[in-house]
Amino acid sequence: MSVTAPQGFRAAGITAGLKPSGKSDLALVVNDGPARHAAAVFTSNRVEAAPVTWSRVAVGDGRLDAVVLNSGGANACTGAQGFADTHRTAELVADALGISSGDLAVCSTGLIGELLPMDKIEAAVPQLVSQLGQAGGDAAAQAIMTTDTVPKQAAAARDGWSVGGMAKGAGMLAPALATMLVVVTTDAVVDAATLQDVLRAATSTTFDRIDSDGCQSTNDTVLLLASGASGVPVSREALTEAVTEVCASLARQLIADAEGAKHDIAIEIRTAASESDALTVARAIARNNLFKCAIFGDDPNWGRIVAAVGTTDAVFEPQQLDVSVNGVQVCRACGVGDDRSLVDLSGREVHVVVDLHAGSETATVWTNDLTHDYVHENSAYST
Amino acid sequence: MSVTAPQGFRAAGITAGLKPSGKSDLALVVNDGPARHAAAVFTSNRVEAAPVTWSRVAVGDGRLDAVVLNSGGANACTGAQGFADTHRTAELVADALGISSGDLAVCSTGLIGELLPMDKIEAAVPQLVSQLGQAGGDAAAQAIMTTDTVPKQAAAARDGWSVGGMAKGAGMLAPALATMLVVVTTDAVVDAATLQDVLRAATSTTFDRIDSDGCQSTNDTVLLLASGASGVPVSREALTEAVTEVCASLARQLIADAEGAKHDIAIEIRTAASESDALTVARAIARNNLFKCAIFGDDPNWGRIVAAVGTTDAVFEPQQLDVSVNGVQVCRACGVGDDRSLVDLSGREVHVVVDLHAGSETATVWTNDLTHDYVHENSAYST
Repeated sequence: MSVTAPQGFRAAGITAGLKPSGKSDLALVVNDGPARHAAAVFTSNRVEAAPVTWSRVAVGDGRLDAVVLNSGGANACTGAQGFADTHRTAELVADALGISSGDLAVCSTGLIGELLPMDKIEAAVPQLVSQLGQAGGDAAAQAIMTTDTVPKQAAAARDGWSVGGMAKGAGMLAPALATMLVVVTTDAVVDAATLQDVLRAATSTTFDRIDSDGCQSTNDTVLLLASGASGVPVSREALTEAVTEVCASLARQLIADAEGAKHDIAIEIRTAASESDALTVARAIARNNLFKCAIFGDDPNWGRIVAAVGTTDAVFEPQQLDVSVNGVQVCRACGVGDDRSLVDLSGREVHVVVDLHAGSETATVWTNDLTHDYVHENSAYST
Repeated sequence: MSVTAPQGFRAAGITAGLKPSGKSDLALVVNDGPARHAAAVFTSNRVEAAPVTWSRVAVGDGRLDAVVLNSGGANACTGAQGFADTHRTAELVADALGISSGDLAVCSTGLIGELLPMDKIEAAVPQLVSQLGQAGGDAAAQAIMTTDTVPKQAAAARDGWSVGGMAKGAGMLAPALATMLVVVTTDAVVDAATLQDVLRAATSTTFDRIDSDGCQSTNDTVLLLASGASGVPVSREALTEAVTEVCASLARQLIADAEGAKHDIAIEIRTAASESDALTVARAIARNNLFKCAIFGDDPNWGRIVAAVGTTDAVFEPQQLDVSVNGVQVCRACGVGDDRSLVDLSGREVHVVVDLHAGSETATVWTNDLTHDYVHENSAYST
């Protein structure tokens, strides 16, 4: 259940002293091959952190030998010095591994606008490399946590090959990725071009469909590394299916650990004219603070749902909108439906279904409620 | 300082029993002429309440004789019965006033998805009409409150003529209007076509530039009524200036009373390539929950500001972004600027300035912080 589940990977996670808490904060994942194909998806935020700029170039040729990740500092909005620090981190780790720094991706997460304490990172690299091992996946997943309360890992075992993954992220989760670092590994035999297609397909229906708070981060990175160590050639379809399974599990874990959340909310849009329309409507609901507060209060306030739907340019006739919450059709033809007091919101999961009656497409976006604890976490601490 | 400040207007506000609290909930504003020109701006939400549908038609010919407003129920998503109830309300009031129901606008605010208790409205109409008077402006402003903690009124006196206004709204404030009912009156002599231009110009730089929570309502209505009772012909420019002054005051009062807010935040975008770009960037910041939580925590977390700017498609080079908070330039060239601890956030007003270095246009959007009290108000009560 970790990035070292597939053959050909070692990992480590240690305490470099970047976090005031003294918890582990530096992780490394190494692909020992024989293949070292890699694919990546990055944040679409135009203000991107130095490690994102670095890693875009590093993965540009479809090859990565290793990934170093730190929590305790995002190294975003840190100017030329920040980029020099990412470059230096890559060189320190590459030298210790005996690889080229150009084959090493760097990921950072934490507060924006502060320089990393490079003396601590430099001092920690020898220990980081010495701890590398096939049992190191759990430690790596621990070391990338920030406001996460639990590490997130997943794996999918297939006949002779497998996919593993880890993720961090608890807020700033939004389409096009957000405060999210993800490393997925596989020992399948696959070429680099296919790998990129597989990752795009997997993220588009998983990480791109979670939206905890509509806030998009400067550091989001999803990496997929393929070692080929299983010796098993795998079709694009089979690999896409397995990688999607791992990404879906990680995405679900991210929402379940979203900052302060009391409810995980699946917003399913049905009978849309297009998948794009379904996503637009689902995201408008997922980002509506009034709706999210109502769910926190166990209130199936469907008026806030239809009001959010009404702000979109999706194809639908307002008079035809139907809304169900946890199986009770509280809104029928944009009017009062079944008694809202029949809705049971006592559980963690909430299922909202909106029927647009405009076609046959569907999409689901996961979000969470807006709670006192979300406000507390994001007002009391700089993150 | 009310809708009855200009000559030619009477108003009233009474308790019809629509609110469980027993507070006043039914208001009436009558234009006694000699002119009865009217202009209106409505919500752009496609799910519009029955009274919005009604009032669009009523004001379509540029004439309104009166406006009846209720709190205690939005009459939105109430289907054919809801529209019939709005029609019936208009007829009851029109009959009592001896006017045509087609010259009467109806505004409603409160919970979505519930039918109005028409028996209570019918029973209250005689009293409502009997209370009409030039001193009734304050009572009308009281009767349209929902979660507002104070009534909102404004007036602008000019040489021989004046403008007055009242507003309600405390959440669901967003561009293109939101949970906001506004009636503005003037005794200036002006034609109906000019009146519509004046109202569009005034709302575009006032109500359209407040954004408390990004949530757009189904009921927003802004009405401008002109009695001509002063006998003073007024130029378009002079009337626009005075109506804008009243609208700006009401908009500022709405933000100051936004649900649970501890800080009022002016987000000023400078050196933008276009006014549209400046507005896009300002709204992206105004809707960023992480930023709004940080301000609640008195934390000048500029990383969340630049991350929000980076999600837009405005013209700018990320490396050139400058950000000041209350006069301290905390971010210079998208990197660390002056010491963030120098920022004083102890006051109610916060002033954020973002320089895009892409042109010479500017725009300011007002918002507020995201607080425990906002979550509490919007989770504990159906509104």
